Amino acid sequence: MGKNLTSRSEDYSKWYNELVVKADLAENSGVRGCMVIKPYGYAIWEKMQAGLDKMFKDTGHENAYFPLFIPKSYLSKEASHVEGFAKECAVVTHYRLKNDEDGTGIIVDPDAKLEEELIVRPTSETIIWDTFRKWIQSYRDLPLLINQWANVVRWEMRTRLFLRTAEFLWQEGHTAHATEQEAIEEAEQMMHVYAEFAEEHMAVPVIKGLKTPSERFAGAIETYCIEALMQDGKALQAGTSHFLGQNFAKAFDVKFASKEGNKEYVWATSWGVSTRLMGALIMTHSDDNGLVLPPKLAPIQVVIVPIYKGLEQLDEISENVMPLVKELKSKGISVKYDDRDTQKPGFKFNEYELKGVPIRLAIGQRDLANGTYEVARRDTLEKSTVPASEVVEKIEFLLEDIQKTIYKKAFDYRKEHITKVETYDEFKNILETKGGFISAHWDGTAETEDRIKKETKATIRCIPLDAKDEEGSCILTGKPSYKRVLFAKAY
Amino acid sequence: MGKNLTSRSEDYSKWYNELVVKADLAENSGVRGCMVIKPYGYAIWEKMQAGLDKMFKDTGHENAYFPLFIPKSYLSKEASHVEGFAKECAVVTHYRLKNDEDGTGIIVDPDAKLEEELIVRPTSETIIWDTFRKWIQSYRDLPLLINQWANVVRWEMRTRLFLRTAEFLWQEGHTAHATEQEAIEEAEQMMHVYAEFAEEHMAVPVIKGLKTPSERFAGAIETYCIEALMQDGKALQAGTSHFLGQNFAKAFDVKFASKEGNKEYVWATSWGVSTRLMGALIMTHSDDNGLVLPPKLAPIQVVIVPIYKGLEQLDEISENVMPLVKELKSKGISVKYDDRDTQKPGFKFNEYELKGVPIRLAIGQRDLANGTYEVARRDTLEKSTVPASEVVEKIEFLLEDIQKTIYKKAFDYRKEHITKVETYDEFKNILETKGGFISAHWDGTAETEDRIKKETKATIRCIPLDAKDEEGSCILTGKPSYKRVLFAKAY
Repeated sequence: MGKNLTSRSEDYSKWYNELVVKADLAENSGVRGCMVIKPYGYAIWEKMQAGLDKMFKDTGHENAYFPLFIPKSYLSKEASHVEGFAKECAVVTHYRLKNDEDGTGIIVDPDAKLEEELIVRPTSETIIWDTFRKWIQSYRDLPLLINQWANVVRWEMRTRLFLRTAEFLWQEGHTAHATEQEAIEEAEQMMHVYAEFAEEHMAVPVIKGLKTPSERFAGAIETYCIEALMQDGKALQAGTSHFLGQNFAKAFDVKFASKEGNKEYVWATSWGVSTRLMGALIMTHSDDNGLVLPPKLAPIQVVIVPIYKGLEQLDEISENVMPLVKELKSKGISVKYDDRDTQKPGFKFNEYELKGVPIRLAIGQRDLANGTYEVARRDTLEKSTVPASEVVEKIEFLLEDIQKTIYKKAFDYRKEHITKVETYDEFKNILETKGGFISAHWDGTAETEDRIKKETKATIRCIPLDAKDEEGSCILTGKPSYKRVLFAKAY
Repeated sequence: MGKNLTSRSEDYSKWYNELVVKADLAENSGVRGCMVIKPYGYAIWEKMQAGLDKMFKDTGHENAYFPLFIPKSYLSKEASHVEGFAKECAVVTHYRLKNDEDGTGIIVDPDAKLEEELIVRPTSETIIWDTFRKWIQSYRDLPLLINQWANVVRWEMRTRLFLRTAEFLWQEGHTAHATEQEAIEEAEQMMHVYAEFAEEHMAVPVIKGLKTPSERFAGAIETYCIEALMQDGKALQAGTSHFLGQNFAKAFDVKFASKEGNKEYVWATSWGVSTRLMGALIMTHSDDNGLVLPPKLAPIQVVIVPIYKGLEQLDEISENVMPLVKELKSKGISVKYDDRDTQKPGFKFNEYELKGVPIRLAIGQRDLANGTYEVARRDTLEKSTVPASEVVEKIEFLLEDIQKTIYKKAFDYRKEHITKVETYDEFKNILETKGGFISAHWDGTAETEDRIKKETKATIRCIPLDAKDEEGSCILTGKPSYKRVLFAKAY
């Protein structure tokens, strides 16, 4: 196809890296581990943001903004939290540069050392709970339902565009509640919101579940997650929602006066999704020709390519196309008419395939004479000839159909890649040959989980919410188990 | 009025600080110089973002995202740029914390020192131009019109909510062009876009002009600005747009192949507005009772307060109010029906006055009997009784009228506060007694500008775009001058 993209079967990882760059989504910057999100990639992220933001507001949350920097002492207040984040953070120690005295350049001014170092936020629980203390006095102030869109930094040694970068963009919800039950319901609600967004907007099927204690967020009592399956059989954690109990309220002394007049610690949740969702989106749908985007998130939903010789033919085509462009726009469909004369139609076809534009229309002299368009859908690459009078209807149908079709394709793939096993040999065999999620019995101990991870690199992705009660024996130790959990190798 | 707000005449600065906090816009955080933007303040900022973002996109710009961190060496590449920013920046020197060996706490791990320090971006020209080098090969890649919504850090020693904070939110546009003329036109265009936004969305009149060389952005050839006037007679720079010439292209070696096949350095602009606009908004319109918000940016445009005794009366009122709420929402008007039974109507009236909600409706038993609402507008505090059948029309009228009225009020205030002076004594006198902009002749030298600044604290805010050619003598030196410039004390 002339896109020079490594095929997925040849090298999935290389295919991903090439695709992200060639489709103009993102690239590595000169700053170690930090990416540049290019306009086309950012336009998809903006659509994700808009969709999620609406869902957060519909569930009663408000946006706010908290400082980028966290004093070192704040991070240390919750013991398991600092343990989880201190190892990978950017530390600000000085607040000024100056000219070197020997005139050779710019150096850090040793006189401008901070009394207390500042951490660039890896997540904002600590600074937010330090603020919530001032906002919460009585039960009337609860629930407090706050979200923040922000950048965060986790100093990753091995990075990969969108999936794992030192700086990434995300949203983090932070809520405070009067009762334990209400906080648990909030954490569960946000997991469902994430799942709905993943499935309905991104067309990415996900499994909802609970993390095991070893895989929980640092400082959480319970971590809910949504897990997706990529085309190489590896799982990707697409979102997490945490029930934090009273851990942060205690660490930051946040109490409220209850209706009965008692002073009680509040109950907390936090939840987040990040630009990592871009990775999930790309790896779930795309193919050897490039991106495949769900219509709901595609920056360009329809592209129209004129096929012509000479300006006269182009003018004639343009005259026919302009009313269509106008009509599509009036229906809220984003459309691009690509009449550049610097590139040939074949080049354009390739480019829009690479960029995953859901629907491509082409119109040449014969179409003009017949009153037709050639309509191609990106997901199946099927082409058909459609009378101009029916093309809007066809586009409306296809936008919905592509959204459904790629979801179903991903769903079927995942269904085929959830394998039940009874023995450790079978487990290891499936993991190596087929991949995907492996549904297996586990004795519930961190030791077993850890040993399996060390021996196979598979981790427990989650205890699915819909896991049935079922007596069995742990694949590793043979000890009794009452539920299956899902293992997989993961991103 | 029970709002316990210091009056503007008593202490303008105290009034501002109190208002920002009491109206729930923002507060200081535990991190020196960094603010927390509260949900109500952030909702206004979101409306500003949405309005500006649309204007940027309508003028052909695309959003992208660049790294938070800038390697020290990048910042040093453009000489005047590093001079302007090195003195006030947060420096990341380490990438890990660890447990102190004596078990007493968490310390910066001395083994995790970065080879090259990273600066938290104070502005992104350097990292963006390092990226543009890869994006620009030929004239076909130009113009490149990029915008970024981001947080930036400038280590200010004396901070003030919204107006001057160590971290703030902003957008920064960065564009690359094939010709000097096109870049100049871009910089001018964005100044006009900012002015249009300030005047039409924020209802803040601004003067468009050019900065003097001393007041230019570090690295710019020309800085365009919009200047607003606050109610205390001090000016506030609300937005700047820079023509950067080829300075950054040369520093980062960004060349393009022209149509003729020559390799040429590209021409650049950058432009930005920040959360400082919140300060301009507050200080332009608000009064001793609290915020006054322009309807176009008000998170709540209409609030309805029921006045009742007992649940039965409330139910009856609610039954009447709900269809109105629905109708207003269907027209895209944001409305809040405040039926809280924990607060009395008087408390609510005060609260919405403090928060600047443009229109307040009240409905009690008599209104119910008469089929009326009491309608109060926030800007003039005028009340009227309006038949329920006409209330939607009245609201639509008021939303437009308030927007116009507060703009006119601010415009008239500014008009009265531009004073022409001919002598330095007159200049100093006006500055101390009346304030505002002072239109005066200046000999065009940095020495004179600097001496006036040192002696009076007034700076040249701009050389207005519409300044007429007019022969005169510099107020300080008596040397010839051919244009008047605008001086003022500024935020």
